[in-house]
Amino acid sequence: MSKQELPVVGQDVAECCPALLTAPLDEEQAEAVAKVFKALGDPVRLRLLSMIASRSGGEVCVCDLTPAFDLSQPTISHHLKLLRQAGLIDCERRGTWVYYWLLPEATDRLARVLTRPAGAPPADTADTAATAR
Amino acid sequence: MSKQELPVVGQDVAECCPALLTAPLDEEQAEAVAKVFKALGDPVRLRLLSMIASRSGGEVCVCDLTPAFDLSQPTISHHLKLLRQAGLIDCERRGTWVYYWLLPEATDRLARVLTRPAGAPPADTADTAATAR
Repeated sequence: MSKQELPVVGQDVAECCPALLTAPLDEEQAEAVAKVFKALGDPVRLRLLSMIASRSGGEVCVCDLTPAFDLSQPTISHHLKLLRQAGLIDCERRGTWVYYWLLPEATDRLARVLTRPAGAPPADTADTAATAR
Repeated sequence: MSKQELPVVGQDVAECCPALLTAPLDEEQAEAVAKVFKALGDPVRLRLLSMIASRSGGEVCVCDLTPAFDLSQPTISHHLKLLRQAGLIDCERRGTWVYYWLLPEATDRLARVLTRPAGAPPADTADTAATAR
């Protein structure tokens, strides 16, 4: 399937873009961001995502992903579906196989969500300030 | 409790620091990172974390967190415990109340995990390259 046919790829994170550390999230924002973090909160999905993202050429056949796991093809496909629903990857069927690639704007947005506001003290200082009481 | 008494604050992410998008994660790395993303994969925990992180002064009394939610004090405490076990926040009891603060090095590390390697094409280009077939 082409990108054009996909309705909401990465939409959740796109809509939710406030930095987590700058101001309290409202319920709707929190729902949208949590959905993507939840997709990343599983070791098999993280390994799949890292295999897809780090592949030179930018895409991976599902036939090259499955052998790395002691899991059935349907289980792998289910995990890939959850990553896709979270807007982190996209895919296209070509003949027998489905090919997957990273949607880097989704991980970029998520990295921004976790980034501290400009002007925040460096981690060491902030940590010391908070704990040295 | 002081920071010194805490055995494994932020340890999981500290040990696992490979960028997710650079090379395939091994099982152990994926387990460690997934644990932290799982802690973030819940809207209540995300809202708690954003309330704690964005608080001027750097810390929040649990008595100021609870009223924002339609949840019991024990439920809020459970969510805070999961954030703490993931190394994202720390706390200290003072008299009746427990005070929480962000451990910014944990969110910094997580942001780095999601950052694309230097030299990667910008998101738009990468996306176009991957989908324009």
